[in-house]
Parts: sequence; C-alpha cells; structure tokens
Amino acid sequence: MKVILDFSVIPLGVGLSLSKYVAACERILQEKGLKYQLHANGTNVEGEWDEVFAAVKQCHETLHEMGVPRISTVIKVGTRTDKVQTMEDKVASVRSKLKK
Amino acid sequence: MKVILDFSVIPLGVGLSLSKYVAACERILQEKGLKYQLHANGTNVEGEWDEVFAAVKQCHETLHEMGVPRISTVIKVGTRTDKVQTMEDKVASVRSKLKK
Amino acid sequence: MKVILDFSVIPLGVGLSLSKYVAACERILQEKGLKYQLHANGTNVEGEWDEVFAAVKQCHETLHEMGVPRISTVIKVGTRTDKVQTMEDKVASVRSKLKK
Amino acid sequence: MKVILDFSVIPLGVGLSLSKYVAACERILQEKGLKYQLHANGTNVEGEWDEVFAAVKQCHETLHEMGVPRISTVIKVGTRTDKVQTMEDKVASVRSKLKK
Repeated sequence: MKVILDFSVIPLGVGLSLSKYVAACERILQEKGLKYQLHANGTNVEGEWDEVFAAVKQCHETLHEMGVPRISTVIKVGTRTDKVQTMEDKVASVRSKLKK
Repeated sequence: MKVILDFSVIPLGVGLSLSKYVAACERILQEKGLKYQLHANGTNVEGEWDEVFAAVKQCHETLHEMGVPRISTVIKVGTRTDKVQTMEDKVASVRSKLKK
Repeated sequence: MKVILDFSVIPLGVGLSLSKYVAACERILQEKGLKYQLHANGTNVEGEWDEVFAAVKQCHETLHEMGVPRISTVIKVGTRTDKVQTMEDKVASVRSKLKK
Repeated sequence: MKVILDFSVIPLGVGLSLSKYVAACERILQEKGLKYQLHANGTNVEGEWDEVFAAVKQCHETLHEMGVPRISTVIKVGTRTDKVQTMEDKVASVRSKLKK
C-alpha cells in the first residue's frame, strides 16, 4: 500500500531552535532512500506504508537518543486504490485547474 | 516505545456518512485489545508504537476492502522518555490546573 | 457557519509540563461560554466559526502573555451544509454502527 | 500577531478529484495578496493572523457555494514572539543543519 504522507515533528523540552532535529529526521529519509520534500511546515514523503512509517518511528527514536525528552508529531497520510499518484501529480493537478 | 495517539480517518468517494467506517476502525482497536477513546473529532489510542500503528494501517486496509477508494488520515502522536503517562493522566493534569 | 473543531496547542520553550497552558485555553472557552470537551490529545469545541476561532486566537495571545515564546497548534475543523450536527451526534452515530 | 500556517482542505461528498477545490482556495489566497506555497499535502501561508484565517474561512464558504456539502480541514499554525521568521527562513534553517 503506497502512501503520500506529511509529517512535522515537534521536539519539546529542548528550547526554541528545532531545525537540527528536523535535519536529523531528514537524514533518516535520505539514508533510507525515500523520496521526500521539505517545506515550511513539515516534510512530504512518498513510498510504501511500512517503509515510510518505519522512518517516522526511527525519527522519534533518534531524537530521543539526541536527548529530546518529549516529541509531538503530526502526520497526514493518504492512500488510494483508484489510481497511482505521486507528490508531483498532486501539485500539477491543482496547477492545471488554476490556469482555467 | 509507548505512544499516545489521536487519529481521524476521512474516507473519500463514499458520500457524507462516515460513521460506519469509523466504527470499522474501532472494531479493529477492540479486536487488538488496544486501549482507546472515541471523541467527536477522532479516536485516542494508547499502546506500543508498533501495535498502535499496525491498527491504523489495518484500518486503511479494511476501509479499502469495504470499497473506499481514497482515505485521508490525520494522526497526532506523542512519545516521551521523561515519565510514563496515560491518556487519563493527561486529562487529569489539565483538570488539576483548572481548579487553581 | 457552524463548526466542530478540535485543537491542540503545543507551547515551546517552556519545558515539558504543558497542562497549565492547556488549562489557560480551557478557561478562555469557559469565559466565552463555548461548548467544549477536553480529551487526551486536544479539545473539541462547537460553535460559530468566528467565535470559535476568536477563542483559538485568544489562546495564542494569552499564552504569549504568560511568557511562552513559541506556539505550534494543530486544528481540525469541519463544516457541513447538509445537516446540523453536534459533537454528541458524531459520537452517537459511530456507536450506533458499532452495535450492528 | 504573525503566523506561518499550513492548511489542507478535504471536500466530502463530491467524489475523488479534489484539485479544483484546492485551486479555488488558492485563488482566494492570490486575490488577498497573501504569500503562500502549495505543496503535495497542503498549502503554506504567511501573514497576519486575522488575514490568514479570513482566507481559510472564505475557502470554506466558497467551497460550500460550489456545492460541497461537507468540508474537513486540517490547520497547523505557528506563532512566535522571540523572532521574526519567514517560511523561507524555516526551510533554510533545516538545510544549513543538514550540511554540517
């Protein structure tokens, strides 16, 4: 089952600068060879359900190992059986409607 | 790694009445023996990361088998290493502050 | 336009105990006379769009006044024109399907 | 109070192709002159709290006028008092940590 997922990790108890923790999660996505796109409020990832969720879990584990005592994460995940769709397809579909 | 998670499943392409699909997901949580609480905008679940996420995955699979062509789910998940906390603890902690 | 909304406020830079901040937001809902339900991962609120969102805004303002330097909030909001529905209706609708 | 916000609108009861509705919301952001970025799982917007939330409300109103009977929207909103930060700053901050 293929997913397109967006997740944003909020480390608590480590102050206000969170970017190094987001970068640590991004490195996990890179190491796993997952297709992803960082944006201003999260990271979009595309792949098989198990692989993508394993990466999110590893992100939590890694951040706790880095000393983060509490993590709150928001995930938006979509699956569909009617067609195969990529992250680029989703954006392109909206853009094509905008021109009309 | 223990989690407290909230998830809300939105089936697309099956009209406006979504409660039977939410009920199907609730049955999965019951069958797995997970501790959960249904509320007006989602379902709270408490348990081990792998078990809880396996239930969310099974919910997607079951809904697709029921004929739902597209599903969009929002998950909020929290983990912490500083203390053990239940769903009841979280609510009780806020209530105790309200009285002051 | 009536809404059923769920929101969870995450204060950053103030340590790990967040319940007093959630309680401060709950007091705002009380003072405004809004119908709400606290749960383990957020607070459900029912009311007119403008009133409910004014409460969420006031929650951010109040927390910043309390010294919270950064706040990250997740909101799930639903509106519908096909029927009038309360928070209790939503839960009852799922429960009725569970019995079948 | 300045916000960086991410929202994704899910129209229910109108089938599986949602892009024309997302495009309608994007047109509202354009007309209001708001700074925004469409991505695969939502739209990021930057601006004053009242202006940005007025756009989200208008998006719900417009979609209902287009015949959408039910809408479920997820919003992630951040405010901070410690510094001024743009959407580009957030992404650049993560990227700078990745190189190290």
